[in-house]
Amino acid sequence: FNSQQAETIRLFPLSNYTFGVKETQPEEDPSVLARLKRLEEHYEKFGMRRTCEGILVCHEKNHPHILMLQIANAFFKLPGDYLRPEDDEIGGFKARLDERLAPVGRIGEGEEAGDWEVGDCLAQWWRPNFETFAYPFCPPHVTRPKECKKMYFIHLPKAKVLSVPKNMKLLAVPLFELYDNVARYGPQLSAIPHLLSRYNFEYV
Amino acid sequence: FNSQQAETIRLFPLSNYTFGVKETQPEEDPSVLARLKRLEEHYEKFGMRRTCEGILVCHEKNHPHILMLQIANAFFKLPGDYLRPEDDEIGGFKARLDERLAPVGRIGEGEEAGDWEVGDCLAQWWRPNFETFAYPFCPPHVTRPKECKKMYFIHLPKAKVLSVPKNMKLLAVPLFELYDNVARYGPQLSAIPHLLSRYNFEYV
Ligand SMILES: [Zn+2]
Ligand SMILES: [Zn+2]
Ligand SMILES: [Zn+2]
Ligand SMILES: [Zn+2]
Repeated sequence: FNSQQAETIRLFPLSNYTFGVKETQPEEDPSVLARLKRLEEHYEKFGMRRTCEGILVCHEKNHPHILMLQIANAFFKLPGDYLRPEDDEIGGFKARLDERLAPVGRIGEGEEAGDWEVGDCLAQWWRPNFETFAYPFCPPHVTRPKECKKMYFIHLPKAKVLSVPKNMKLLAVPLFELYDNVARYGPQLSAIPHLLSRYNFEYV
Repeated sequence: FNSQQAETIRLFPLSNYTFGVKETQPEEDPSVLARLKRLEEHYEKFGMRRTCEGILVCHEKNHPHILMLQIANAFFKLPGDYLRPEDDEIGGFKARLDERLAPVGRIGEGEEAGDWEVGDCLAQWWRPNFETFAYPFCPPHVTRPKECKKMYFIHLPKAKVLSVPKNMKLLAVPLFELYDNVARYGPQLSAIPHLLSRYNFEYV
């Protein structure tokens, strides 16, 4: 084990990607309380919930930008979702990415399903209780975490078409805007610059 | 490129390591201003300064702890230092780690020089100006950063003897203490939990 330097990753300009619109995808839970209740029910039936999210990176003016969904002009999230209990991790993750972003209608013609290049796992977040807190490690004395969320590097190809649900916006947020900005982006998204700081990028 | 999951890394208990004492290593610069002045002189002569620091990980009660130096009962830093302009990166880094921590005197007998297993580069910090700010990315429009600091995973073997300069303390700081604690540890050390969150650990 002596990899030392991370590979250099090629980033393409935001303008290489084409964005369409698809049907609204309503929030599954009307409130935080409802979401935690559903997590508890899931845990009782299937054990720890597994969630996968994608960090999709492109560039503008030679600075990395992350593609994020903004919901109701308010909070931000990465594409991805809970896996079904029966899913294998990477296959299930690609299906969740397709649901959120795969092109539909005319711009989706000829596109194959699950066409995502899943790269390194960049982070794991552990939720110890049926509460909103999560940590980037499994806290001491926690033997049965309730959820593990993995964030994966998704390598975008030179060009790609994506369709975004009508109730969401897809934004390209620069690293310098995320960095040290817990107030706006929360602890998970504002840590993305740290997760990417081992990589060198080539801006095409 | 499809590594996806980081390897599982074996951690040994803190009690496996033996700590001795060696001569005081005074700070090279009496003030922040003097340090920035020296950086400027270095830059004029040799270009961007290269710094390497080591993230040495062990465990206590199955929670990862980072070995850090505390200076004058005040600020914390990782073992490592500037490289000499003529050094190759990994060789120079191992020499800096030896200066700081290699055992001397009787406990150092039979130890070889440069006996460090340097693992992944975990982060790169860029200093754009002759100022104290650094960022985990090269900020837009910065074409000539003044310093690049790399943080490397150092894999500790099952047992090891280390000697610590008399004016420093070596502390094992748990991840949960570093996390979200910029006030005490600063932006670089408090981000270590993020940098390690991709790894799974095996506690021996
Ligand atoms: Zn931009
Ligand atoms: Zn790739
Ligand atoms: Zn401890
Ligand atoms: Zn190793």
